[in-house]
Amino acid sequence: MKPPVIFYFDFSSPYSYIANEWLGALAARHGRRVQHQAILLGATFQVAELKSPVSYPLKREYSLRDFERSARFEGLPYALPPVFPIPTQNAARVFWWLSETRGEQAAAAWATAGLRALFTAGVPLNEPDALKALALRSGLDGSECERVWNDPQWKARLKRANDEAIGAGVFGAPFIVIDGEPFWGNDRRPQIERWLAQGPF
Amino acid sequence: MKPPVIFYFDFSSPYSYIANEWLGALAARHGRRVQHQAILLGATFQVAELKSPVSYPLKREYSLRDFERSARFEGLPYALPPVFPIPTQNAARVFWWLSETRGEQAAAAWATAGLRALFTAGVPLNEPDALKALALRSGLDGSECERVWNDPQWKARLKRANDEAIGAGVFGAPFIVIDGEPFWGNDRRPQIERWLAQGPF
Repeated sequence: MKPPVIFYFDFSSPYSYIANEWLGALAARHGRRVQHQAILLGATFQVAELKSPVSYPLKREYSLRDFERSARFEGLPYALPPVFPIPTQNAARVFWWLSETRGEQAAAAWATAGLRALFTAGVPLNEPDALKALALRSGLDGSECERVWNDPQWKARLKRANDEAIGAGVFGAPFIVIDGEPFWGNDRRPQIERWLAQGPF
Repeated sequence: MKPPVIFYFDFSSPYSYIANEWLGALAARHGRRVQHQAILLGATFQVAELKSPVSYPLKREYSLRDFERSARFEGLPYALPPVFPIPTQNAARVFWWLSETRGEQAAAAWATAGLRALFTAGVPLNEPDALKALALRSGLDGSECERVWNDPQWKARLKRANDEAIGAGVFGAPFIVIDGEPFWGNDRRPQIERWLAQGPF
């Protein structure tokens, strides 16, 4: 088995939602699995002195349009959430709890459920009741998830993930690393396809 | 003839260099011409509260690597100029002088000559002697070009181009507008290809 494709994402990143929909099948076609890594863009933005693309004049209007168009380009449903961006630390802590107690696949399924819920149905992942309901629909125990996201152990696990991502040079999302080569953004798909098919170019 | 593809670029933008190499032939295959618009990213960055990608921690290292990889992906020669980024107002003023006195094609040829000189041979377009020598190699009169870039008329013409670009929502380069639809970045090539082939999607 070749090394996994590492996929850094934030639950509140539209381009992460889009990339998550095509990356798994693409990686599998090339004998790779995807290793999800939930992070908080707030942490990487601070170190990189960046902000959300919707926080800049001019770029905001373009980005809102491009989120939608990029989803349509991939044939995906998409709707801008009523509140955007939102803080996603609770969803991310549940991700790391799943990753460490039930394995990568359970965590990846939660990542996909959260991204789809936010970007197709506007589910406010930052609201405890909405997140507990999503956990329930995902076959998890909502109250257990709430204990997890309030637990210092899982808060610390997420912080470590952020620190390690920053140490690896991550400054945005999605941020995809293959064989040590970094690719930032859903729009690096053509380069990722070539790398997976041919190796370094 | 269909409406032209509008191509906003800065002479100091590596992704503009790359996009300029594929856009002309692509547009021609779909019955369009490319209308180049030289701008200064310094002006758009100020309004959009942005900086060059190489001015941010973490993003700098990634961007330098991605410039090279994105050029290789398109099969293009590329070398990071010894000084980067550089101020390019003189080259841009010559562009607008050519555009208004000799036509779009002469200006487009100068755009291509300047981008290639900077990003394949490291020619410092900000240095008057190097720019005059480039003008000579491009079939222009170096001294005449120097008079142009010191002429308030052409300074004002470039300023108007910057103001109009900002008014059109341009915040980076390359910024490509087709049928009123904005596409930011060399990496929007797949979406541009689909738009040109099929229209709105």
